[in-house]
Amino acid sequence: MNLTAFSKNELTAFYEDCKKTYADYQAQNLKLDMSRGKPSPKQLDLSSGLLTCLSNEDLLGEAGDYRNYGLLDGIPEAKRLFAPMLGVQPEELFIFGNASLQAMYMAVSYAYTHGLLGNTPWHQLETVRFLCPVPGYDRHFRITEHFGIEMINIPMNEDGPDMDMIEKLVTEDASIKGIWCVPQYSNPSGIVYSDEVVKRLAALEPAAPDFRIFWDNAYCIHHLCDNPKTVLPILEEAKKQHHENNVYIFASTAKVTHAGAGVSMLAASQENLKDLTKALSTFTISFDKINQMRHVKYFDGKFENVLAHMEKHRALLAPKFRVVLDTLNAEIRPLGIGEWSEPKGGYFVSFNAPTNCAKRIVELCKNAGVVLTGAGAAFPYGKDPEDRNIRIAPSYPEVDELQKAMDLFVLCVKMAAAEKLLNT
Amino acid sequence: MNLTAFSKNELTAFYEDCKKTYADYQAQNLKLDMSRGKPSPKQLDLSSGLLTCLSNEDLLGEAGDYRNYGLLDGIPEAKRLFAPMLGVQPEELFIFGNASLQAMYMAVSYAYTHGLLGNTPWHQLETVRFLCPVPGYDRHFRITEHFGIEMINIPMNEDGPDMDMIEKLVTEDASIKGIWCVPQYSNPSGIVYSDEVVKRLAALEPAAPDFRIFWDNAYCIHHLCDNPKTVLPILEEAKKQHHENNVYIFASTAKVTHAGAGVSMLAASQENLKDLTKALSTFTISFDKINQMRHVKYFDGKFENVLAHMEKHRALLAPKFRVVLDTLNAEIRPLGIGEWSEPKGGYFVSFNAPTNCAKRIVELCKNAGVVLTGAGAAFPYGKDPEDRNIRIAPSYPEVDELQKAMDLFVLCVKMAAAEKLLNT
Repeated sequence: MNLTAFSKNELTAFYEDCKKTYADYQAQNLKLDMSRGKPSPKQLDLSSGLLTCLSNEDLLGEAGDYRNYGLLDGIPEAKRLFAPMLGVQPEELFIFGNASLQAMYMAVSYAYTHGLLGNTPWHQLETVRFLCPVPGYDRHFRITEHFGIEMINIPMNEDGPDMDMIEKLVTEDASIKGIWCVPQYSNPSGIVYSDEVVKRLAALEPAAPDFRIFWDNAYCIHHLCDNPKTVLPILEEAKKQHHENNVYIFASTAKVTHAGAGVSMLAASQENLKDLTKALSTFTISFDKINQMRHVKYFDGKFENVLAHMEKHRALLAPKFRVVLDTLNAEIRPLGIGEWSEPKGGYFVSFNAPTNCAKRIVELCKNAGVVLTGAGAAFPYGKDPEDRNIRIAPSYPEVDELQKAMDLFVLCVKMAAAEKLLNT
Repeated sequence: MNLTAFSKNELTAFYEDCKKTYADYQAQNLKLDMSRGKPSPKQLDLSSGLLTCLSNEDLLGEAGDYRNYGLLDGIPEAKRLFAPMLGVQPEELFIFGNASLQAMYMAVSYAYTHGLLGNTPWHQLETVRFLCPVPGYDRHFRITEHFGIEMINIPMNEDGPDMDMIEKLVTEDASIKGIWCVPQYSNPSGIVYSDEVVKRLAALEPAAPDFRIFWDNAYCIHHLCDNPKTVLPILEEAKKQHHENNVYIFASTAKVTHAGAGVSMLAASQENLKDLTKALSTFTISFDKINQMRHVKYFDGKFENVLAHMEKHRALLAPKFRVVLDTLNAEIRPLGIGEWSEPKGGYFVSFNAPTNCAKRIVELCKNAGVVLTGAGAAFPYGKDPEDRNIRIAPSYPEVDELQKAMDLFVLCVKMAAAEKLLNT
């Protein structure tokens, strides 16, 4: 029965019951962290071989001695290995250091301080705006906020962000300089952008000459199902429209090998790469080519080996997503007090509670020892206008711990929903 | 006999002789690159053990699982290992990624976009100036030039930059926001800053509230002699004067382990670290902690092992510096057509030719197959006002190749000097 159909007495009894169970949880002194999309120790163990796979001889690569300075844009072996992951040509790739976030920061920073392809530096403009499909990735929003960029929420549909709204805004308003996108298994809602959405994004005719799609394909090979739906290669689509300069693509092996010690990359048109190199060649002599080669060696230079490696991640992750979805289906669906994504890949389940309940749920969980991502974190400025969204990150805890955390979570959802109904 | 004392006929004969020898060199089709301070393959071999020294278990460090996200400021084990190298406390260290240049760029970039410790962002100021002791490091000057910062040349004395000039400028002109320093074996002149110079720098009372000494201690343990003279720890000196916020210290293992795949670091006051973290926490989740731990393990966490490792570099480098100095002493000193440093460490010999000869020497070398650093590279904007300075980088070639390159170099110095005398 839907919770809204409960009588006042039934609701009070329901709430009192919940409170008793909650007290039991508090007595257990749980200490679980589900705040970030961190791989579990077992996932990290999958890449142990990476630590010792390199020998000195491997570092005499086809473009020289990778133990020495040089090759700012990365080693050719790594470009060839990862180009298919991003759906680009090797020469469209620039291999960075240990985190794709750094590449995104550098791109925004360069636009702010110097301007893109000769356009006015953003710091000289009255207003610079970015479109932010929501819910989205908090660290994206933090970069744009850091540079004083005004963020506009864009609602997400089942197949990607609201394209009608995006087309209208981008073509009419020259202060709109960019959009953050996580096209494959978007963070946190797990949505995969449809071919139509990608084609419409690639065909955008922006009012701003320096508009960029920040295409963070962080989960491009992070599937949890057979025959996954994949996203059209946006740079190819943009080329067809002669809009290849509108796109920056980002990816990394952070959730393929070791988190924070992988290889990250940026793909873009030749013109964009040459432009960004003005900043990057000042920023550094080169990135860590030894780690690039370590990855090439570990995967024997073959992208199919990377994909095979991802199957091992899937085997560890899929049961955890199952726990989350099964628990929500069993406990929340009958009561009608929440909606959630059923992602086919990526790292998150996006949960929407009844309006004005998210913060309370996070608080209740925290007071019983389970740390979730802060309510609102998936929105620009940390402000969820309806206080509904919670990002569930099931990857890190082991299955039994996760089950405990989810049991507590659904209990807290019930309590928050009941409190709201009792108080209205 | 000094070349200036040659008669016209003697000089013409001397020049014709040189030209014949030069033609022989050209016929040899030499291909030698002495353009950058790159370690040699044998030096890089010294750190081969680094490639395979880590096991999975080592990565469960005292602050958690270093294979996962987190610890933006670096692992405590690495802070303890490297703190003595910079003469600071472990808590004053922030461990970065593979290149200290990135840390310098981020510091200047943050000052430009956001301002230091709440001061006006530099992009909002009419004029921002930096003091640049010359000759200096071209990549420093490139960062300041990239951000439109006006650079002022400061002459170098035997014991460091001209402090009278620095004190006058810094205390009078609030547009002067920084100074680039390589205090130990300065690049390229090999000068070691005296205690008095360090104390006067630490005691500076800048007109600008956001003045910073960019203290790039790149060669702090890169000695080529016994009982080396070392530089006073500037952060300690600055603390005594309550000016600890005036200093950013940089260093790396680029020329200790692998160039471009080492560990870099920034040391600063607590206030400065907290301030810079506003940008760095937006820039990345963490730097490569696996590589940090790799270095800790390889050196067994002991700074004395790092120093012992540097002795092996010295054994490879010292004979090369000997070749350079012996050749200059034998061939150039008698003719009085040049002056040079005799560094006790670092990576360079700084050669000063007769006025207006440096470009010609570099050109002559290049046309016979030896690439030197471009004349003027050691000066802001690449402009050596007297066209005298050439940076000799002896580290990369093996001794026999280096001897060949130096034989050609002194020949080109003779030719350029003779041409100049013949044309005046």
